[in-house]
Order: sequence, then structure tokens, then C-alpha cells
Amino acid sequence: MAVRNAKATWEGTLQEGTGTMHLGSGAYTGKFSYRSRFEDEPATNPEELLGAALAGCFSMSLGSALGKAGTPAKKIETEAQVHLTKGETGFSITRIELTTVGEVPGIDQNSFVQFAENAKNGCIVSRALGNVEITVAARLKV
Amino acid sequence: MAVRNAKATWEGTLQEGTGTMHLGSGAYTGKFSYRSRFEDEPATNPEELLGAALAGCFSMSLGSALGKAGTPAKKIETEAQVHLTKGETGFSITRIELTTVGEVPGIDQNSFVQFAENAKNGCIVSRALGNVEITVAARLKV
Repeated sequence: MAVRNAKATWEGTLQEGTGTMHLGSGAYTGKFSYRSRFEDEPATNPEELLGAALAGCFSMSLGSALGKAGTPAKKIETEAQVHLTKGETGFSITRIELTTVGEVPGIDQNSFVQFAENAKNGCIVSRALGNVEITVAARLKV
Repeated sequence: MAVRNAKATWEGTLQEGTGTMHLGSGAYTGKFSYRSRFEDEPATNPEELLGAALAGCFSMSLGSALGKAGTPAKKIETEAQVHLTKGETGFSITRIELTTVGEVPGIDQNSFVQFAENAKNGCIVSRALGNVEITVAARLKV
């Protein structure tokens, strides 16, 4: 079992306040605000951290399965789009769209799509996100 | 509605491969590996990004509610511990423990605990994590 740590702070009210998010490994500390989360200030926000966590977990899981099948990936590149939508109960993360491109010698497009579907359904972060619809579009680089 | 972006890569097999995770705002790109995720290499991993996203979201939500109640927080500091546990279906994120300390003039400990419980249950990232048990321990700084 591993325990991973992180920290965050918030000072002040929703609109005027400011926050930080900090990774336990010390790798990163970033500032965020109402404007960087719900508007267009170019700083970080919880949703892009979540998107990076899912994209990383998915890519590692896909690489693992391809390696076990005897067709290791030269490279997998995955984008995550995290949709934050306003509904009756306020904002929710309704959907995350993954788009993955693989350089994988020795397999065909249909097989790659199936590996990607399995990683999307089975990876650790996907399984944690029980209330989010996750989709994946997968193609092999030619 | 907002759409937030992130990217990740993975090259190679599970044990020998290497990955990156990248925030769409450009705020951070970090390397990760099997060892930084499941063992003790001091680099980032998806779980600490998820922990930071939840701690940030929770702290902002708590700050928002305290502000709306007329008792804005001077400061909220939250730690997240993300438990990655091996079970029958492989590793899962079974539990995230939040510990929050507030500097909030004008409210008492019991009220602060109730605000923290509400933020834990209601914040955007908490609601996305449908398959994770989230707990919060809250205390006012005296």
C-alpha cells in the first residue's frame, strides 16, 4: 500500500480569495483562484490536475497492457478534456474525454482501440471517478 | 461551462517505462514512473495530483461557504492522504483522508466541523470521486 500526500490552502471568500495546491513529492506548487477555475485566468485549477492524473494513469495502464501482450509501446500520447458543467446542483465534472495516439509496432488499429477501451475502464483513476463519464478516442500513429 | 485540458505520455513497458503529466495551463510538467507511483522514487504520480485537486477543491468550497455565511476564512489549510491499496482487482484508490485547519474569526469548532463536512460531501471533485471513501478531520486554529 502507498499513501500519497498533497496540500492546499484557501484564503478569503470565493470570488476574492486565493488558493494554492501543492504536491507531496514537492514537485509542484501552484496558485489558483475563482477566475482560473471558472473563468479564463491563465493559472492552474483542480480540474486540470484531475485531467493530468487521469491521462497519466490511463497512459501508464495502456503501456502496461501493451507490454504484457508482447507489443510494447514506443510512445503513447494522451490528451484529457475535463468538462465542468453548470447544472441544478451547481458545477459538476460531467465528462472527461481522452484522446490517445500510440506508436506501437506490431498491432493494428482495432486492437489498439480495444486496449485503449480496457485501460479507460480499468485504470486506477478511472475506477475512482465513479460519477464521471469517461470516453476515449484512440488511433495508431502511421 | 469550462473545459480544462491536460496531457500525458508513456513510453515503454510498465516497469521500465517512463511517463510525463502536463497541465493544460502550462503551469507544470512532471515525470513519473512505476517507482514513483508504486514504490518510493521521489517524483510525482497520478495519486498526488488527484489529492491536490481534491484538497484545492475542498478548501475553495469551504472558503466559499464560510464567506457566504458572513464569517470569511482568513486561511484554510488542508492536507490530503490518498490511499492506494492492493486488492483482488489490483491497486485501487480506496480512501482519501482530508485534514483541514481553519483560521475563521467568529465561528466555533462545531460549526467549522459542519462546514467542513458539507464541503467534503459537496465539492465538485468529491462528487466526481464516486468510488472513493472521503473523510475529513477539521479543527479551528486557536
